[in-house]
Amino acid sequence: MADGPTINTIAERAGVSIASVSRVLNGLPTRQETVRKVMAAADELGYVRNAVARSLKSRRTHQVAFAMADVGNPAYLAMLRQIQPVLKDAGYRLVLHSTDAVVADEIDVLHSLGERYVDGLIMVPLRVTEAHLEMLDAARAPVVIIGQVPEGTRVDNVRADSRTGVKLAIDHLHALGRRRIGMINGPLDTVPGAARGAAYREALGGVGLPYDEDLVQIGDFYRAEGGRAVAELLDRVPDVDALMCANDLIALGALDVLRAAGRRVPEDVAVVGMDDTDLAAASWPSLSSVSLGSAERGRAAAELMLERLQGGDGEPRLVTVAPRLVVRASTAGAPVADFPAESRTDRKESAE
Amino acid sequence: MADGPTINTIAERAGVSIASVSRVLNGLPTRQETVRKVMAAADELGYVRNAVARSLKSRRTHQVAFAMADVGNPAYLAMLRQIQPVLKDAGYRLVLHSTDAVVADEIDVLHSLGERYVDGLIMVPLRVTEAHLEMLDAARAPVVIIGQVPEGTRVDNVRADSRTGVKLAIDHLHALGRRRIGMINGPLDTVPGAARGAAYREALGGVGLPYDEDLVQIGDFYRAEGGRAVAELLDRVPDVDALMCANDLIALGALDVLRAAGRRVPEDVAVVGMDDTDLAAASWPSLSSVSLGSAERGRAAAELMLERLQGGDGEPRLVTVAPRLVVRASTAGAPVADFPAESRTDRKESAE
Repeated sequence: MADGPTINTIAERAGVSIASVSRVLNGLPTRQETVRKVMAAADELGYVRNAVARSLKSRRTHQVAFAMADVGNPAYLAMLRQIQPVLKDAGYRLVLHSTDAVVADEIDVLHSLGERYVDGLIMVPLRVTEAHLEMLDAARAPVVIIGQVPEGTRVDNVRADSRTGVKLAIDHLHALGRRRIGMINGPLDTVPGAARGAAYREALGGVGLPYDEDLVQIGDFYRAEGGRAVAELLDRVPDVDALMCANDLIALGALDVLRAAGRRVPEDVAVVGMDDTDLAAASWPSLSSVSLGSAERGRAAAELMLERLQGGDGEPRLVTVAPRLVVRASTAGAPVADFPAESRTDRKESAE
Repeated sequence: MADGPTINTIAERAGVSIASVSRVLNGLPTRQETVRKVMAAADELGYVRNAVARSLKSRRTHQVAFAMADVGNPAYLAMLRQIQPVLKDAGYRLVLHSTDAVVADEIDVLHSLGERYVDGLIMVPLRVTEAHLEMLDAARAPVVIIGQVPEGTRVDNVRADSRTGVKLAIDHLHALGRRRIGMINGPLDTVPGAARGAAYREALGGVGLPYDEDLVQIGDFYRAEGGRAVAELLDRVPDVDALMCANDLIALGALDVLRAAGRRVPEDVAVVGMDDTDLAAASWPSLSSVSLGSAERGRAAAELMLERLQGGDGEPRLVTVAPRLVVRASTAGAPVADFPAESRTDRKESAE
């Protein structure tokens, strides 16, 4: 390239300033006439800005990867929507990996850091295995993990606090006078299922209610399965007066089944979801839900990553994002707002 | 690299087969013990697989970019969820660009194709300007555009058919006996606003209903603005018996306002949305909505891209995805399903 066309020879050929050439080649806003002249001159001179060649020199790719199980999951999407602009503003492109919840795919992503196709990786593993830990040790680029990691793992880490989140919901239901509070959970061999189940039991103790196995029904983290679990619980414990659901989809299933069974929400049975997805505000009655701060976790992870990319070499950091309870009609009996304020469901849809 | 460590010297040092080394270095599933041995040997020998160096040689980055206005928009997300696995299966990574609906950002993405950081680009421009067309001409890599492009533009193109979509909805409402069918639209200076407004007028003519300006209210493509527009329309035309809404968020706003006004849906006023987002199934009553096939458009775009990447050099192709009307409770008066079948809202949420 040393004897090839340069920014100077292009400027000369195009009859514009060097600054203009630089603007055009860097894709900055420039008058169309100038863009045309510069591109024509660059083409005539055989000039190709080659990102690959440049990054070989600088050993920087200006790319960061975000790896999660499924971009269709609203929690991951909320993270992505925060991570993307933080990285973009700092000049990094985002490479997206969807691992389909396959552990081997997650390991593959970690391993491929050695290929230097990105400068760093933000990852939401489903559960951290031995193989993850080995690959983390070997990682040749900064990694930020969103989720639980074993004590002592040397990695930047951002966590939710579902235990406090469940406690917020149980305290709220108890304060409303509910005493037969059921729990509809996902499988106990998943990280969220185990954590949310344990937190439910603990939170009941906190308000002085006994733990009653009959009030717990295990289904799966989906709407149909959630509904089926609620139907079984209603059969077994007809006097249940509140349902703590382990996510919003289960809670939507609960609303379906309670409506079909003629139980009023919240008068007869109050319902709380978890994750505070867009669906919570769209349902009717609108759904009270525990936010585990997906957006905030995404932002925190992106900021930790930028610190590392800018040379930060301190000790690994742990950021825990506090949960909050968003109270809506399914527990509060509040009237449905006629004109909701600007909200997360309030988005433009204009793809023609 | 010629005298540096090779797959053979690593295999020798690690005491494993060459095939095992290859598997590990390519990130394929391998026994942990083997991974450990190979990584240790590779480290000792100072071996670094360098994707940048390899891609410089092959002139391939194995990356494809997807550029759209906002990844939070459910229509774009539905596209992304199809594009990602198609590319992944073919060995391509996905680079995500969110342009925030800024035309200069879209041009920038097109321009940066010259940098060769991706092998191709799938783009959803808000509207195609002169500057887009110039950059498309200059593009040094294959481009697929999802959306409308001017007649004669030489680019692979995937389109929706909102005109037929609106017609499906109006035909349905007319068949239900509705004769005062209002239209709640977004701004007419947007591509979807203009197209959907014209289609409404044409579809009315198709069923022999007169076009009545009083029945049309322009708001914006958001829930609160949609609700406000509906309130104005109800004031002006109290006998309206159906609402064609230009997207699902407007339709959710319509449900809010109709409920507050004591109008039953669908008995008094039937409501149809557009885009068939997850919110349509989650709302109550659940929302009939016109699907413009976002998922199908994403898949078609990814497949056109792969054809080009695999050397296809035929004429530019146009794929038009047919719309379909998804009938739910807001027009049909159908009972709400107790146990919905596997559906698009039926997703796992388990980010702890």
